[in-house]
Amino acid sequence: VAARSEFTLIRQFFSALGATRADVVLGVGDDAALVDSGGADLLVLCVDTLTAGVHFPADAPADAVGHKALAVNLSDLAAMGARPAWALLSLTLPAVDADWLTGFRSGFHRLAAAHDIALIGGDTTRGELAASVTLAGFVERDGALRRDGAHPGDAVYVSGALGDAAVGLRYWQAGRRSESEAVAAAIERLHRPLPRVALGRALVGLASATIDISDGLAADLGHILERSGVGAVVEIARLPLSPSLRSLCSQAEAAVFALTGGDDYELCFTAPPAREPDLTRAAAALGVAVTRIGTIEPEPGLRLVDDNGRALPLPRAGYDHFGGGR
Amino acid sequence: VAARSEFTLIRQFFSALGATRADVVLGVGDDAALVDSGGADLLVLCVDTLTAGVHFPADAPADAVGHKALAVNLSDLAAMGARPAWALLSLTLPAVDADWLTGFRSGFHRLAAAHDIALIGGDTTRGELAASVTLAGFVERDGALRRDGAHPGDAVYVSGALGDAAVGLRYWQAGRRSESEAVAAAIERLHRPLPRVALGRALVGLASATIDISDGLAADLGHILERSGVGAVVEIARLPLSPSLRSLCSQAEAAVFALTGGDDYELCFTAPPAREPDLTRAAAALGVAVTRIGTIEPEPGLRLVDDNGRALPLPRAGYDHFGGGR
Repeated sequence: VAARSEFTLIRQFFSALGATRADVVLGVGDDAALVDSGGADLLVLCVDTLTAGVHFPADAPADAVGHKALAVNLSDLAAMGARPAWALLSLTLPAVDADWLTGFRSGFHRLAAAHDIALIGGDTTRGELAASVTLAGFVERDGALRRDGAHPGDAVYVSGALGDAAVGLRYWQAGRRSESEAVAAAIERLHRPLPRVALGRALVGLASATIDISDGLAADLGHILERSGVGAVVEIARLPLSPSLRSLCSQAEAAVFALTGGDDYELCFTAPPAREPDLTRAAAALGVAVTRIGTIEPEPGLRLVDDNGRALPLPRAGYDHFGGGR
Repeated sequence: VAARSEFTLIRQFFSALGATRADVVLGVGDDAALVDSGGADLLVLCVDTLTAGVHFPADAPADAVGHKALAVNLSDLAAMGARPAWALLSLTLPAVDADWLTGFRSGFHRLAAAHDIALIGGDTTRGELAASVTLAGFVERDGALRRDGAHPGDAVYVSGALGDAAVGLRYWQAGRRSESEAVAAAIERLHRPLPRVALGRALVGLASATIDISDGLAADLGHILERSGVGAVVEIARLPLSPSLRSLCSQAEAAVFALTGGDDYELCFTAPPAREPDLTRAAAALGVAVTRIGTIEPEPGLRLVDDNGRALPLPRAGYDHFGGGR
């Protein structure tokens, strides 16, 4: 089955499953769901499963797996502008290995404690190594950042730098793991991404649409465009690239990693140009780089241009873990 | 590693993970967690992962896997006295098979719709077949049924009949799947358990402690006893056995299945004797059989007795999927 029809199949699979409830504000199809539990704020819920060999290298350090299992969900909550609160963890293990569990626990615990998240439940079962985390948080009733609010004329931004984790994965897989500081930095980005929770909170009331970048900028910005019914032009020369990435790749390679590499866990968002001063101030206060990379246009689709405004072909999309559900 | 030390290790693993939060009313260690999201009722959250070959036969019908993935979580919510509301589904698939997905979806959807549950999120990934469901619901602030409230003198009850699913599994695994109506009934109990959600709701204000029976009565009642700091005597002749089970096993075998067979998804609960008339009335109104099987005593441990009050040895405990977390 080709990736495209798989995607369609799984989208159909998840749509309209179960009852229709009035307390569901936003169901399947964004970074997280929004539901009304009767409190002052809306509840935000998401789940993501990491499987060995698909979402992390089977030989990744145990603490990195624990960190990343929570981080990918935190990144989804960040993309909704939510404050995280509670986690549930379902862990599938091929065997009970005390050292591995201690490492996993330490990576999970450190990130959870840093974001004031309590683990409130979980289970363990035997099987291929996988960690499924459900994360719950809160967002103001009219504050949630969604994928469907981008308008023509809005600017397109990304946080941090893109492509490092994808390059880190190449070096990790090649067994070239400590040959330079640049490689070590890229591998650190791969193993222990730092989700942009504080930035997500700051974007409430500023951004018109937001998504986290887990499958590569082109694919994830594509979700904003599709859900918002718009297109975008992205200036390739504006893509934020880290010094590590620049030192490890040619300019052309770096751009491909930035556009299609997965596992960045940065935020991509749109905002009206009038918001730029507020955005710049908020990002500076948090010490987070935010780069304007393009503009939303009425015509659907993502278009890349070079320094001179000439159209460039889109590189092939990043790896698709079935493409489903997020 | 022996099962006992695995259990201890995993219990330690899940304890005190992440931050301590004032809005966590009950964390890891019961059938589900209770948290305060600021609404009128408490939020109830649980997660359970079913893995092929561990929690269901790898050749189980797809609709049964979809049904059961939700049912085991519904049973956890039933054991808290909660009303279910929202589900998230993380599905791990070895390949995208349209027929299998359609079957799974149909089993999941039917049970979800029957309990007014909306699927609000999920993801899919590639790997060994597994389905992880997170279920959220509500319970009154002072209403939650917990494991830790049993008192000496309370009666011990179970709903429905025990042991059928375990016998059904034997016949399924032996390939003897349609040799009689009794076998078909036992296999139906295995594949499509019907969680006692309405009974759980009716037990709010009546039961002193409740658990759902997923790992066998002896093991699960054992959790109530441990968490409540009490013991119990159970009269083996009182264990409720279905006509199917009686027709497929000797009396002695049937009792072992009832005590140690997994996958019953009935409720085991305790209540002061003065509540018995109310309990009987509530169970009758729901058309659910509720059987008094024993009594809570101060001395820790579970004791079995025969018709004449003579002590019987406990059969070996049921299969332990690592014993962790629930």
